[in-house]
This record gives sequence, structure tokens and C-alpha cells, in this order.
Amino acid sequence: MTDRNLTDIDALIELMAKLPGLGPRSARRAVLHLIRKRALLLTPLADTLQTVAETARECLNCGNISTSDVCDICTSNKRATGEICVVEDVSDLWAMERTGVFKGRYHVLGGTLSALDAIGPDELRIPRLVDRVAAENITEVILALNATIDGQTTAHYIADQLHGNIRLTSLAQGVPIGGELDYLDEGTITAALQARKDI
Amino acid sequence: MTDRNLTDIDALIELMAKLPGLGPRSARRAVLHLIRKRALLLTPLADTLQTVAETARECLNCGNISTSDVCDICTSNKRATGEICVVEDVSDLWAMERTGVFKGRYHVLGGTLSALDAIGPDELRIPRLVDRVAAENITEVILALNATIDGQTTAHYIADQLHGNIRLTSLAQGVPIGGELDYLDEGTITAALQARKDI
Repeated sequence: MTDRNLTDIDALIELMAKLPGLGPRSARRAVLHLIRKRALLLTPLADTLQTVAETARECLNCGNISTSDVCDICTSNKRATGEICVVEDVSDLWAMERTGVFKGRYHVLGGTLSALDAIGPDELRIPRLVDRVAAENITEVILALNATIDGQTTAHYIADQLHGNIRLTSLAQGVPIGGELDYLDEGTITAALQARKDI
Repeated sequence: MTDRNLTDIDALIELMAKLPGLGPRSARRAVLHLIRKRALLLTPLADTLQTVAETARECLNCGNISTSDVCDICTSNKRATGEICVVEDVSDLWAMERTGVFKGRYHVLGGTLSALDAIGPDELRIPRLVDRVAAENITEVILALNATIDGQTTAHYIADQLHGNIRLTSLAQGVPIGGELDYLDEGTITAALQARKDI
């Protein structure tokens, strides 16, 4: 942009362009927008980023991202319902929380088993899940893993590890709300047909 | 996300979602990405944002965004070519600079004249442009305004103000490089035909 070496503004554009969903052009647009809305957006964003950079960490218990060693869900007594919902990733936990329907606690695996990427049970917080089921009076483990091959392989492995007198469930498969049959794949329709219910 | 009020992470997602090009979903994805790449991305971004929030300002001379009172282009003697390129916005200045072809200085109007939005010459740094043309030994003013009605109205107004013994030019209009005639509007083709050149 200038005769000199990289200025702070150029450096900011480069960093913003590394965010998912932003490229060089949209990063420039975002930076201009930030500079124009300094008091409303730039300063609050800089402060909040600084705070999060200092405080954000993984919950030692469940792997959720939190600003304390143990996350709010794990410390809340209200959430001690005896249910653990197992998810692959923090974004899946957030997606579950947005529904507001699940009242129990979570366990974030941090990925799925994958022979190709050499990810085994120890990379995935699975031993920690087995410990928690014993320690936290768990009665039901809900496997909310993605309906991919790796996700289902992981679900089978966890089911094997958790045999005993707890209930093991997984999310129902079927037609999404608002989904049109014409646009759904055969696998989903087959699953929906096999799990059909009386009305 | 939690039982408590808005956490810092939620606040960060809300702020990120206000950036152009990001919505709530992509803001969540960006924040998770930031937290995972703390050392590589989150901390540098927080630091750079803080610096820019403290130092970024408009160049007193040309309106470019800079980290000093007068921007690098205005202070550089190499850029004192006697040419001023008039642009609507800092993003246009950046677009011009990316070509690396223009060696002179800029003047950022900060918008276009608009009766509808009650934007007159005084809102637009036009008086400052007139002063600069007299003070900086300017021989040519290039009007690089957008080819919109407001942009062209502003160009005409500036041309009126700058009558005298300087050269006034505007960007050529025609077929963009790589452009296909079939996809161009009639106005562009008409302009390109009228400005046809011998080969």
C-alpha cells in the first residue's frame, strides 16, 4: 500500500484474511469498516480479542471452550442430570446448546477416530469419557456424532467401551424439518423409512 | 451458550458477526478458528487490532487512512509528480495502488455528491482539493471516480471548480480486460465503440 514495509494496517488485513470465510478482498473491506467504526467496533473487538486470547481454554473435564479451567456447564449443578451428550467438536456443542433442549452435560471428543490421519482413542478424550461415566453417576450417553463414516465408526467404538448398565442412544436419523424428499439422498430416505413411526 | 450472562467468547462472536461478509454462523466458525490458533492468529490479531485502534487516522492532507497525521504517500517526495488522482473512497485508493502504475498522490473525497443524502461539496474534502491543486504545483488531476451517476456528477462539479491551466483527465471507459461483449451492458459497449482506437 505504501513505499515503506508492511504497515500495521496491511498486517491487520493479512491476519484478517486468514480467518475462515474471509479472503484478501473481504479482509480489506472488514478492516476499512473497522477503522470507520472505531469506537463502536474496532476498540471493543480489540479489547475482547485480548481478553479471549488471555482467558480462553479447554474445559479440563469436557473439552468445551471456556474462560475458566472447568466450563460453566460442567460446574452447573442444574446440568447434573446423569446425561452426557458426546459431540465431535465445540461447534457441535454450540449447535446443540442453541436448541436449548438438552439439559445435561457434554463431552467434546475433539475429532473422530481416523486410521488415515492416525487418530486413535487416546487422541480423542475417549478414556476421559469412560472415567466420567463412572465418576459422575451417568445413566445415559447420547452419541451426537456426525452421520459420516468416521463419525459412525467412532460411535461404534465408544459404544463398545461403555458397555454396562447405562443407556446408550444416538440422534434419530430421518428427513430434516422443512426438507423436500426430492432433494434428499437415498440413504436418508431409507433411514427415514426404516425408522417410520405411527401417527 | 451458558447459564450465565454473555461470556467474553459470546461477546467476541457478536462483534465478529458485525463485520461485513460475516454472519452469526461464520463468526462462530472464525472465533473457534482463532481460539484454536491462539499463538499463530489470535494473539497477533488482538495486538495488531489494538495498535490500529490507537494509531489509525485519516491523513490530514489527502484523507487516506494512515498511522500518522500525514500519510506515507503524501510525505514521500517520490510521489510529488504533480499528479493527483481523485478517488471516492480509501478502498478505491487501495485498488489503484495495487496496480502499482500510478506514481503520483491521491485525494480521497470520502463519498460523492448526493442531493438525496444531503452531501454537498463541503462534506467531501472538495475545498481541500482546490487548495492542494494551488499549493502542490499540480499539473494534472485524474478523476478516478466510479462510473455511477453520483460519481459522474461529482466529477463534473470538480472539473468546474478546477478550471485553469491544469490538465483534467478521467479513467478511460471501455471493455474490461477479459470481458466478453455478450455479458457487457449497452452503455459500456457504446463507450468503448466511441473511444475506439487505431491498432
